[in-house]
Amino acid sequence: MDKLRIGIIGLGTVASGVYKTLQDINNIEIIKIAVKNINKPRSVSVPKDMLTDNAYEVVNNPDIDVVVELIGGVEPAWDYISAAIKNGKHIVTANKELLAKKGEELFNLTEKHNRVCLYEAAIAGGIPIIMPIKTILAGNRIHKIQAILNGTTNYILTKMDVDGASYEDVLKEAQELGYAETNPTGDVEGFDAAYKITTLATIAFKKRVKIENVYREGITKIRKEDMAQANELGYKIKLIANATIDENGNADVRVHPMLISKDTTLAHINYVTNAVAMSGYPIGDIVLSGPGAGEFPTASSVVGDILAIQAEFGKTDYMLPMMRCHHEHKANPVNINDTYNKYYISITAPNAIGVIAKIGTICANKNISLASIMQKEVYENSTADIVVITEKCQERLIKEVVEELDNCTVNSLIRVAE
Amino acid sequence: MDKLRIGIIGLGTVASGVYKTLQDINNIEIIKIAVKNINKPRSVSVPKDMLTDNAYEVVNNPDIDVVVELIGGVEPAWDYISAAIKNGKHIVTANKELLAKKGEELFNLTEKHNRVCLYEAAIAGGIPIIMPIKTILAGNRIHKIQAILNGTTNYILTKMDVDGASYEDVLKEAQELGYAETNPTGDVEGFDAAYKITTLATIAFKKRVKIENVYREGITKIRKEDMAQANELGYKIKLIANATIDENGNADVRVHPMLISKDTTLAHINYVTNAVAMSGYPIGDIVLSGPGAGEFPTASSVVGDILAIQAEFGKTDYMLPMMRCHHEHKANPVNINDTYNKYYISITAPNAIGVIAKIGTICANKNISLASIMQKEVYENSTADIVVITEKCQERLIKEVVEELDNCTVNSLIRVAE
Repeated sequence: MDKLRIGIIGLGTVASGVYKTLQDINNIEIIKIAVKNINKPRSVSVPKDMLTDNAYEVVNNPDIDVVVELIGGVEPAWDYISAAIKNGKHIVTANKELLAKKGEELFNLTEKHNRVCLYEAAIAGGIPIIMPIKTILAGNRIHKIQAILNGTTNYILTKMDVDGASYEDVLKEAQELGYAETNPTGDVEGFDAAYKITTLATIAFKKRVKIENVYREGITKIRKEDMAQANELGYKIKLIANATIDENGNADVRVHPMLISKDTTLAHINYVTNAVAMSGYPIGDIVLSGPGAGEFPTASSVVGDILAIQAEFGKTDYMLPMMRCHHEHKANPVNINDTYNKYYISITAPNAIGVIAKIGTICANKNISLASIMQKEVYENSTADIVVITEKCQERLIKEVVEELDNCTVNSLIRVAE
Repeated sequence: MDKLRIGIIGLGTVASGVYKTLQDINNIEIIKIAVKNINKPRSVSVPKDMLTDNAYEVVNNPDIDVVVELIGGVEPAWDYISAAIKNGKHIVTANKELLAKKGEELFNLTEKHNRVCLYEAAIAGGIPIIMPIKTILAGNRIHKIQAILNGTTNYILTKMDVDGASYEDVLKEAQELGYAETNPTGDVEGFDAAYKITTLATIAFKKRVKIENVYREGITKIRKEDMAQANELGYKIKLIANATIDENGNADVRVHPMLISKDTTLAHINYVTNAVAMSGYPIGDIVLSGPGAGEFPTASSVVGDILAIQAEFGKTDYMLPMMRCHHEHKANPVNINDTYNKYYISITAPNAIGVIAKIGTICANKNISLASIMQKEVYENSTADIVVITEKCQERLIKEVVEELDNCTVNSLIRVAE
């Protein structure tokens, strides 16, 4: 069998794992690796003449069949990838931001040039998810995804839960341990998870979801008190990437914290582990869980994609037909204000008795049923903490309720998973 | 695109689900369905002229590209499948027994005739497992599998746990509800799970495991007292299909009940749900869970296999290269007596103080460390119930311990998962 010749752009954590893993695998030859700085000390020992600081020596290299892009971000990655496709190369990438923002252009370009772009590593790291959806689950209509797609935030929320610690304290610790970046915004504000669910929902629903229609809320406002109260009520708080689609193609796709019942598998996915729960017809409900990031787990997915290309390379004119991405149809976006959810509301009120009646009246006037309303703590100044769990109601109405609670402090408003 | 023409052998639960699912899918045409009795009333409405009571009208039909075998058992299924392959047809099957007993012959025959045999539905029903292992996980060396592969036994064990009921009572209820067969042997004695782990380990380890080397123990001796004590100790009892392979190709493959820590995902897989936990390099640990049986989940896998064939049919001479099964290498079997495990032992002893000393001495003489030894109940006749948890030790030694406890009743000896 001829060797498949690959070039890699980037030699960070994931690329190092890919390089190491490929040492044990026959029939794959690494021709060139593009890096920013050739002389930087690295954890992986790569022959000097394999390195270049000019990515176009990979992209334009006639001896390279597949370009593996592992630098992340939209630019210059998109420049490199689009040039490579035009040069007849297949692409393997772990670039979730590029897929979310340029997916449509990217897949149109690959089809135009009869090339494939595989990206298992971009979503949920090592967990097999993209290839299963596109192959063995192809006969399904998947209508719901609930997923934990960001290890950093899941680590922070797990630590807050286990240690009873505040968000700020755990973030600091996570930064010291290298689980969170110095500028944690991409993770803690939900951007990373939003990129991933955009592509995952597009693939699962077979309709293109646009990143600008994905509602996003991070975890920075979650208090340790919310964690404790959620636990008491039989829930955990997780940053959940949600996507549902109805029969008319209306796709409700969003990332935000949720109270999720301890009876579910997702509630027990802890620390940096990721998980994807999906529901569809005919399959029913499945949950896939595993490492969502890291050198070796992510390398597993990148190498799996490379081997899929290698298996068919040179044998057929139209390679990997199931892995192609045609999405002529676009999903219709659903505004968050039009969605229906259950809510957890934590309130500090000047007078417990009065406020319970007031909340009850405000909600009743909007036809919102309450599942429970509990006084948690009464302070010396006669203010009290109250926790409300609503039944399912429209988001715009619950926002009106919050506005009308004008003499109370609403500490938290968190959606509750069904 | 030309339609892929399929013939189905069998029209039971799974085949009905396949028939219904295919109604929504283009480019697949059902030509013929072989059944035992054409006139039997069915839940699915199939045109009369599509049915035949002669399976050879499917197997020998020149208008059929793919034969979908859904009758189960070795004969006559093997007759039909082997004849179909020789006639140039690709195979999709859900037949775990046939795969376990005839896998080697089957895959040699498909290679000889350049045909594929896909069997996602045979292992863990709807859970995507075979195709992921063979495609996106292909770069891994998987060295460990722990799985719940039989829904009937998992249902029985879950009900025993939840209701505090005896095996006999729950079995009876499960039979009434249709979760267990009138003759439950295939499920409760672990045959079904043994068939499945034989094939799953073969695929994951890339070395052929033989069914006769798979150690097997069922759940019929599990007592409600064992359930209660396991719970108290932080465990659940599950029928676990285990497979590990070492660097020398020694494969320890077995099915038996195990105490499994509540900290693991598998401990929370309840009722008829199945799950497969796998460990490998570079991926680390993943867990895939979902419906292990049933009309529609199993149909998802059968249809996924059909669509995989359809995607490449007629486009290449050597279809689905990653899904081929070559296993020139055989795994070396490991005898259960040579394995190392932790054990739970429940003993009823004539005299608690004496027996604790005696157990301690017998174990110490064999260099077996005890993790805990607890007196659970003292009866009026001065006998006592004692529960022992050992550290890891060799199976043959623990059997000697049981033999030497000659004046006690050993109620249960159950392995404990690490």
